[in-house]
Amino acid sequence: MSNPPPAASTVRARLPRGFADRGPSEILATNRMIEAIRASYELYGFEAVETPFVEYTEALGKFLPDLDRPNEGVFSLQDDDDQWVSLRYDLTAPLARYVAENFDKLAKPYRSYRVGWVFRNEKPGPGRFRQFMQFDADTVGSASVAADAEICMMAADTLERLGVKRGDYVIKVNNRKVLDGVLEAAGLEGEGRGAQKLIVLRAIDKLDRLGTDGVRMLLGTGRKDESGDFTKGADLSSAAIERIIAFTAARAGDNAATLRNLRAAVGDSARGAEGVSELETMADLFAASGHEGRVIIDPAVVRGLEYYTGPVYEAELTFEVKDEHGRPVRFGSVGGGGRYDGLVARFRAEPVPATGFSIGVSRLFSALRAMNSPLTRADNARGPVVVLSMDKDQMGATLAMVGKLRAAGIKSEMYLGASGMNAQLKYADRRRSICAVIQGSNEREKGEVAIRDLVLGAELAASTKDRADYLELRQRAQFTVTEDRLVDAVREVLARHGG
Amino acid sequence: MSNPPPAASTVRARLPRGFADRGPSEILATNRMIEAIRASYELYGFEAVETPFVEYTEALGKFLPDLDRPNEGVFSLQDDDDQWVSLRYDLTAPLARYVAENFDKLAKPYRSYRVGWVFRNEKPGPGRFRQFMQFDADTVGSASVAADAEICMMAADTLERLGVKRGDYVIKVNNRKVLDGVLEAAGLEGEGRGAQKLIVLRAIDKLDRLGTDGVRMLLGTGRKDESGDFTKGADLSSAAIERIIAFTAARAGDNAATLRNLRAAVGDSARGAEGVSELETMADLFAASGHEGRVIIDPAVVRGLEYYTGPVYEAELTFEVKDEHGRPVRFGSVGGGGRYDGLVARFRAEPVPATGFSIGVSRLFSALRAMNSPLTRADNARGPVVVLSMDKDQMGATLAMVGKLRAAGIKSEMYLGASGMNAQLKYADRRRSICAVIQGSNEREKGEVAIRDLVLGAELAASTKDRADYLELRQRAQFTVTEDRLVDAVREVLARHGG
Repeated sequence: MSNPPPAASTVRARLPRGFADRGPSEILATNRMIEAIRASYELYGFEAVETPFVEYTEALGKFLPDLDRPNEGVFSLQDDDDQWVSLRYDLTAPLARYVAENFDKLAKPYRSYRVGWVFRNEKPGPGRFRQFMQFDADTVGSASVAADAEICMMAADTLERLGVKRGDYVIKVNNRKVLDGVLEAAGLEGEGRGAQKLIVLRAIDKLDRLGTDGVRMLLGTGRKDESGDFTKGADLSSAAIERIIAFTAARAGDNAATLRNLRAAVGDSARGAEGVSELETMADLFAASGHEGRVIIDPAVVRGLEYYTGPVYEAELTFEVKDEHGRPVRFGSVGGGGRYDGLVARFRAEPVPATGFSIGVSRLFSALRAMNSPLTRADNARGPVVVLSMDKDQMGATLAMVGKLRAAGIKSEMYLGASGMNAQLKYADRRRSICAVIQGSNEREKGEVAIRDLVLGAELAASTKDRADYLELRQRAQFTVTEDRLVDAVREVLARHGG
Repeated sequence: MSNPPPAASTVRARLPRGFADRGPSEILATNRMIEAIRASYELYGFEAVETPFVEYTEALGKFLPDLDRPNEGVFSLQDDDDQWVSLRYDLTAPLARYVAENFDKLAKPYRSYRVGWVFRNEKPGPGRFRQFMQFDADTVGSASVAADAEICMMAADTLERLGVKRGDYVIKVNNRKVLDGVLEAAGLEGEGRGAQKLIVLRAIDKLDRLGTDGVRMLLGTGRKDESGDFTKGADLSSAAIERIIAFTAARAGDNAATLRNLRAAVGDSARGAEGVSELETMADLFAASGHEGRVIIDPAVVRGLEYYTGPVYEAELTFEVKDEHGRPVRFGSVGGGGRYDGLVARFRAEPVPATGFSIGVSRLFSALRAMNSPLTRADNARGPVVVLSMDKDQMGATLAMVGKLRAAGIKSEMYLGASGMNAQLKYADRRRSICAVIQGSNEREKGEVAIRDLVLGAELAASTKDRADYLELRQRAQFTVTEDRLVDAVREVLARHGG
């Protein structure tokens, strides 16, 4: 007889799009990765802080990279006092609120790291979630580019600690002031140019994806994508466009040569020259700390966020993976950041210099998995020892056996379902248990327990009886010991398989 | 000159009521506590799972304990598809959705634990937050009361692992079927009694707080509290009220005696007798596993949630703390749970038996802190070694020194602010650093660095120069070494103070 159809009132069990559950392997592996990043950041003198998931909408402001839909992107609602609150969409806006609120009691420069989930009310897509994890580090209260340089070097050191080999990653650094200088040299500075500048920034930010021809269109009248959607451009003259394209291509063989190119590109702009000088100082610090070649000046990096005011940086993985069409592509960005001297000033009369870096945790996790990093390998996680429940009237004695195993620090459980012996052993296999313990009435009368090696049992089942050591193996795969030897015998079986 | 007043557009830096930031000590200590609970649950064979913060409102349902405001309590909003979604308000409703959605691929009985933040859109108060953390364990797919018994014993073992001494806690167990039997024996069973039964449940649940007289009022016509608010009662006859009050007082000197009282209290009710039998089985298992006296049958425990269908249990700390008026009170409940055989069935045609336990993480944390548990003691956390920044043109060399310390695994940083030497040392004190490193031009010319022991320095500053060992101490508090001895000298100073 089949099951009755669901009642009309049955609710469908499903998650909203863009949200996901996580199983034990993913939780374990992600936690391992997070602990490695945490250790690296603490080595650099950063300390933990956490803000809640909900903030006043006004306190968060709107600093999302998507210019096209300025009123969307954030989950907002009215609380029981009819105040508008929002789920945090990054970890930078809440930090600005936190620093402003606790300004006098924080030792400054204030170096903190934060890890946690953020939320975007956007259309989800492949690999694009509406809840995802970020890991940020920020130095607030230091105007020195040494603070920026240090975070870039920390990003490099952290990737190596996570097992990314030197040469498989690069930290790219640029400076918004240099871009300002180039725009000024192209005659594009001055009042009321804010929106146009943002279009330019976001055009350059798409260089990787669209190539120079696509960026040229976005700097000019605009661009129509494959779906037919039209993005309005910055409406620059072709001279200005070529000047900007040349600037983004100014990266040379080493930092010194790149810096010479940039010095030329900013012409007479004082702001541009200041930006180049800052990059020179940073390049010196990279060299002094042995980070040359790992952290490089690259004018093609601009970052899509409006609030950056000085150095901007991006962590890129350079090894190749296959894209959805099987073609080799560079893995690409796993994090980025920059200097945002104005963000805390939203809350305070005086400006507060700040710089920070954010890792996309899920993206970095995918990268480490693509590299087959041991950090992300958790599929070898083994389930508990399962003590079979053979007779309902012996549950007390069975639980007492489990108690002995647990007292010895061995993960274990009594089977709690209603099925027979075979189903119980199958359950233990599905839990990936190494070992099952069985005491039927035969064993019980003799004061014994049967110990079953499920790993060896599975090997035996897959092998042929003709092998010379079959009988010996079968003997090892299930054997009987006296009750007092239970813990030792289980330990022995677990040790066979590294459990 | 004072600072200019904030611009009119300045946003106020503040959190919505009922939300809180967490600093490094609290994060460290809470994580330590969570890891201990995790280890305990894994020893019992439970595995981790995580659901997202957002679910369809319909999937979560309304299972909050607050009957009086059935339409409130949950943060809900419409997403970009105009679908109603909500922030999870506990970890049980999302688990029911998860199990229903993944039913066929889960090995059953499915034993899982989950830890995370949940949200309530309620009026916050002292110790009552709108974002708080729960740590749950559930067994889904087992109808056996052995599953309930095991979770009760795990709760006891977990508290001991967290340092709560035997005798300072008790796990109290009851069974909803027994209460049903008592109500039936009092002539209160039958169709249409659901709402009345819920009022009875919640009245008994307030026994601790209101005493028997308060509960009597709630079982009768109703009760007016100190603020003048009136809560409508269950409108029972005095005979029924006394029968229920007698039932809640049926706890005797040991489980066997309590069970005899309960057997009498349920009279001829078959459902009541079934409940008592289940409790008897559980009592046998507690005894067989050495948990007698730690897990006890107590009819006064009913739990305020409607969805429980069988055993209910509560973890209570029995040691005394001072209340807000300085009077000694028992610490009270830190968690609870029970059997909810109907919750997964909301999504599926057939019923799925389940039982689970939830710890209030913040409340348990407060309890451990009240006990002065080492787990919660994190105020000894020390800051990084601070290498002072003495000359701007020597930043490269200074960062290189920091690099050496970090390469040796020593948490350290270069001071990144713009202040002078005294302010830099003060910064290091505020970070609770053990050690500062100083290289002024004098030291640099000689190829040396000065190492300053900030802990000893603070002691010296507070002491008198008359003490016999003053000069020796001063010598130890700051000394000079050649640059190549930097790491060794810093290690030596850190070791003095257990850093």
